[in-house]
Amino acid sequence: MSTKDPAVARAPTITAVRYRSGMAHLAAAVNLVTSDGPAGRAGFTASAVTSVTDDPATLLVCAKRKGAATPRIVANGVLCVNVLAAEHRELSALFGSSTQGGEDRFEGAGWSRLMTGSPALHGAVAVFDCRIANVLDIGTHSVLFCEVLDVVEEPERTPLMYFRRAYRVIE
Amino acid sequence: MSTKDPAVARAPTITAVRYRSGMAHLAAAVNLVTSDGPAGRAGFTASAVTSVTDDPATLLVCAKRKGAATPRIVANGVLCVNVLAAEHRELSALFGSSTQGGEDRFEGAGWSRLMTGSPALHGAVAVFDCRIANVLDIGTHSVLFCEVLDVVEEPERTPLMYFRRAYRVIE
Repeated sequence: MSTKDPAVARAPTITAVRYRSGMAHLAAAVNLVTSDGPAGRAGFTASAVTSVTDDPATLLVCAKRKGAATPRIVANGVLCVNVLAAEHRELSALFGSSTQGGEDRFEGAGWSRLMTGSPALHGAVAVFDCRIANVLDIGTHSVLFCEVLDVVEEPERTPLMYFRRAYRVIE
Repeated sequence: MSTKDPAVARAPTITAVRYRSGMAHLAAAVNLVTSDGPAGRAGFTASAVTSVTDDPATLLVCAKRKGAATPRIVANGVLCVNVLAAEHRELSALFGSSTQGGEDRFEGAGWSRLMTGSPALHGAVAVFDCRIANVLDIGTHSVLFCEVLDVVEEPERTPLMYFRRAYRVIE
């Protein structure tokens, strides 16, 4: 699995500043990751969401380990990935802020519930209702591996994208 | 970490068909994942690439475990993530095909090498040159956790996107 080249094996990783500058060129959809359960309601904005496998139906979410929301979401063991639409820029900013309160941020939108009880956003491009199957900590972040129990699709909606540090839409 | 609700804990995941239908609404950048080393040159098209953490600079790639390219890339222990530009649709299709040959597909484009020796695509939106730090198998796929040793950025290029089963560009 690991490189046999000792120079590559020992090379330092690039700095956080260079890494973030490079990653700004990887366009991504913007999502709200939400949860409710014994540890309380919580949510945050995430662009690091990706498909893992369709068997068993599994996606992953990368979450800041020390974020206010992450410990509660992990403790609840369930979450929704709400794929944001173009009109959700303000909601994205609200859930991306670390200073604005936890519960209050849910007042800016309409929500329902699917199987897990996690908040499912009205007007999302898609909603994935998930059970957290596994958590892997890497550096500052946790990777949440999530099994998908239900999905809602809105095939007419235009998704909100983030690219080169700005919101965009897809043609 | 796991849900306390026994109905949620026992619920089946959605079918592969429903999962893929839902995932079609999660727009993503298109990338070529390439590698060279003792196990030979290999590459495949991937939209499941995401940032993990900037400390240490780490991204992840989800790869079909039984794909022709994946075992060679894992054995080499190194890879490049080449973020494709709008003009790379044919290259994306070539590297996404499981029937067209391994080595031949590299003849359709220009390449250079950074630190790891993996093929770095000329004209990419960005290239991340990586050492594979860890591999996690989940269902049909392997998640490759990759430490980033070098990055090249092309801030003028328009990225190629995939959304609702079609190539798109970002506005």
